[in-house]
Amino acid sequence: MQEHIFKQFDADLEAVRSQVLKMGGLVEEQIIHAIDALATGNTELADQVIANDHRVNALEVAIDEDCSHIIARRQPTAGDLRIVMMIVKTITDLERIGDEAAKIARMTKLIYSKDAVSAPRFLEIKHMGNLVLEMLRKSLDAFARLEVSSAGQIARQDIQVDEEFRLVLRHLITFMMEDPRTISVAIDILFAAKAIERMGDHAKNMSEYVVYMVKGKDVRHTTPEEIEREVLG
Amino acid sequence: MQEHIFKQFDADLEAVRSQVLKMGGLVEEQIIHAIDALATGNTELADQVIANDHRVNALEVAIDEDCSHIIARRQPTAGDLRIVMMIVKTITDLERIGDEAAKIARMTKLIYSKDAVSAPRFLEIKHMGNLVLEMLRKSLDAFARLEVSSAGQIARQDIQVDEEFRLVLRHLITFMMEDPRTISVAIDILFAAKAIERMGDHAKNMSEYVVYMVKGKDVRHTTPEEIEREVLG
Repeated sequence: MQEHIFKQFDADLEAVRSQVLKMGGLVEEQIIHAIDALATGNTELADQVIANDHRVNALEVAIDEDCSHIIARRQPTAGDLRIVMMIVKTITDLERIGDEAAKIARMTKLIYSKDAVSAPRFLEIKHMGNLVLEMLRKSLDAFARLEVSSAGQIARQDIQVDEEFRLVLRHLITFMMEDPRTISVAIDILFAAKAIERMGDHAKNMSEYVVYMVKGKDVRHTTPEEIEREVLG
Repeated sequence: MQEHIFKQFDADLEAVRSQVLKMGGLVEEQIIHAIDALATGNTELADQVIANDHRVNALEVAIDEDCSHIIARRQPTAGDLRIVMMIVKTITDLERIGDEAAKIARMTKLIYSKDAVSAPRFLEIKHMGNLVLEMLRKSLDAFARLEVSSAGQIARQDIQVDEEFRLVLRHLITFMMEDPRTISVAIDILFAAKAIERMGDHAKNMSEYVVYMVKGKDVRHTTPEEIEREVLG
């Protein structure tokens, strides 16, 4: 009987984990499309990203419900419960990455509705976007395999994203000072870059939740070095 | 025996709810100090806000643990479980409001380390800050009393905060165009204003979780009107 309940819990958990990965795949797609729309000025693609945001939101709501049902029906304890609680946290961050993708899409529409687009800094922003995509993929992979070895690297990549954001900021400031007519559009671009920087924060949160699931140790609010020590220890 | 367990659950829940309110009080204080530091150039106060952020973080970690213990020990079902799950979501948003307060404090230090502070737009930013504080207090009050009547109003105030942010943005752009030497400091101020705008989003999330706790209806990703309909229905 006990074993039967355990198996049902495992099956329920497996179903919910595959829902999270589905949500993750959708969010990845949203990021790719948002950054592509921004870099190429494809405002139809931007519209599509904005329209698809509700699918991300709906998945968050559905997975929240699933998690509550699992807890109520299977009454998991200790490690199993920790996994369910961390799934609830993980999808909050995934949903907010989705929000940021929609924000980039809205900025894209604003940017290309204005004149004065001499396409500044999109190369750097694309690079930031690729870095964040890599972080998200690693976090999702860590989640899928309950594997923590990448956590330290993800934390370091988050620092790199922050540095690249400051570089973009400096370049945009130079750009604005050289031609004050570009200020308005440069600020839209700045917000798009900021949205990517925030995606990095959320991807890092997700990888920290995996560490907590696997190691039972809360590594939020620590350094990459401390995370690495925890993961290897 | 059953009744005994119910009472223990109630006592545990009460303890955790008062911890959330304590965390809420600390976050309120952080906002007040951060905005005061920004408006007056009190960089010592800004340092204090930055130093206190870890207290907010520590409370989040502790309350997360408490919630897991309650679920594991008391095995609440349906409505009771929903309340615990929403507490876990609520403190994530509270922690991120704390992060935004620390961000304002860091921007304050940057702003006052530069020349060219002719104190633009701080009155408007203070007004935004007061509005967000009011939203947070209402959300915490709704949480404390499991009372949903303010949810529609909080959602509308969030729209007002967004509008005030766009006003600040427009004024800052004018300011930068008139004197391009102010661009760098104006962008720091813009990020501080953006941090306040985000606090509003988080306070709104918190009030939506209360609606979910009380009504069992997920009103995330809806309009103020839909929230009002749900709350009155």
